[in-house]
Amino acid sequence: MGHPTLHLIAAPLDHGLEAPAPIVDLLGAEALRVAAGLRHWAVENARTARAVLARVNAVVPLGVPMQSLSIAELPRPRKGAADGNAAPAWAALLAPMRQGHDLGLMSEAGLPAVADPGARLVAAAHDAGFAICVHPGSSALLLALAASGLNGQSFAFVGYLPVDAAERADRLARLDAHARRTGQAQIAIEAPYRNRALFEAMLQHLAPATRLSVSIALCTPQARTWSRPVSGWRAMPESLPDDQPAVFCFGPG
Amino acid sequence: MGHPTLHLIAAPLDHGLEAPAPIVDLLGAEALRVAAGLRHWAVENARTARAVLARVNAVVPLGVPMQSLSIAELPRPRKGAADGNAAPAWAALLAPMRQGHDLGLMSEAGLPAVADPGARLVAAAHDAGFAICVHPGSSALLLALAASGLNGQSFAFVGYLPVDAAERADRLARLDAHARRTGQAQIAIEAPYRNRALFEAMLQHLAPATRLSVSIALCTPQARTWSRPVSGWRAMPESLPDDQPAVFCFGPG
Repeated sequence: MGHPTLHLIAAPLDHGLEAPAPIVDLLGAEALRVAAGLRHWAVENARTARAVLARVNAVVPLGVPMQSLSIAELPRPRKGAADGNAAPAWAALLAPMRQGHDLGLMSEAGLPAVADPGARLVAAAHDAGFAICVHPGSSALLLALAASGLNGQSFAFVGYLPVDAAERADRLARLDAHARRTGQAQIAIEAPYRNRALFEAMLQHLAPATRLSVSIALCTPQARTWSRPVSGWRAMPESLPDDQPAVFCFGPG
Repeated sequence: MGHPTLHLIAAPLDHGLEAPAPIVDLLGAEALRVAAGLRHWAVENARTARAVLARVNAVVPLGVPMQSLSIAELPRPRKGAADGNAAPAWAALLAPMRQGHDLGLMSEAGLPAVADPGARLVAAAHDAGFAICVHPGSSALLLALAASGLNGQSFAFVGYLPVDAAERADRLARLDAHARRTGQAQIAIEAPYRNRALFEAMLQHLAPATRLSVSIALCTPQARTWSRPVSGWRAMPESLPDDQPAVFCFGPG
């Protein structure tokens, strides 16, 4: 029984797509080996995690049958309640580590704890003195940034923008001004069904010279990234699919 | 002769370490296949790129012998001169694409065009109407952030901090105040031989309650991430290795 380690395993970015890529295209060999060997998991969504582990199992057989795995879900914050961030709920997830077991952390898509829950668990594990190991894996945010041609030397992930149209317009104008003043590229995401609304607001409220990129279906054969000045988008609008995750990047350039 | 595509291939993060990990642990199968098949490359450092391609070749044989590859280096900005950003030099790198060939883009470590040069080439390829494909790959910045336990819902990469002690202290205090006010995690890097100086400045100028993480040797068996409040670091200082790349993250938490 060695020193327990919290293993951060990236979930494939193609979850839920009709034609997922082979998992060996998305995860390195060692991450697959480690994932296959873990008995205890803390995950954003148990159903997603089981689907990922079934794909892992097809390449590297799991150490124990799927039904023998202990898979706990991360606390979910409720609207208007802060209890999803309550420390006791996160600390309870570390119980297997206190018994000497390694623990896996996986979110629904991409790197856990980045634009996804899990950071509280990682912090709790650090505070309890456990080792943390993050395995190679892709984040959609940085793949999109790399593919955008925007400033990769200074950038910010700003998460979701306000849904209210006036607030969103105001936030876009502020972020755009900040990006122009500092050169910092801005990265934002949206729930797929609101992609079109966000995109149209961006065309309306970002400066004509601001470069705007849209990336969809990253890490799949259907992956696309468009990147052009807002003025170019206005002249040649694309029809964005509104049924899959997109990453939006904008800034000077 | 299909539509030419610019392929962004992540370089392994273990470049230059004594015991590199197997490349199949670091890159997915499809990225390895694509890298092995490309004849034309634009890279940050030709020597590094050849070393990576030799590791690729050991797993997926290159389509043509190494010496037949066309490997061009990205323009380097010179101190005090802006000519590294001159558009013509970047556009010239796209010549193979204008002749109908796919082109690979690789930097020294991690995702190209993120905390590394290449964004100008990606933007030029977009502007010329070429397709851009970014393949799954790790960025040290986001692996470090995931492993830090800091806020993954809002973060900024601020690059290198000033070398001058007074300027660095001022910048750290400003970033720390911004992080406290907004909740945004801050990610910074430094040349390895300055790691200790930056770390000591952080212990001195960040608030005691600010969480500070240090990640080294990411994606290798020697990978470590420490993460604790500045007050905890002050009470229990670590001796940071000053000969390998480190990623520093800090913020409230």
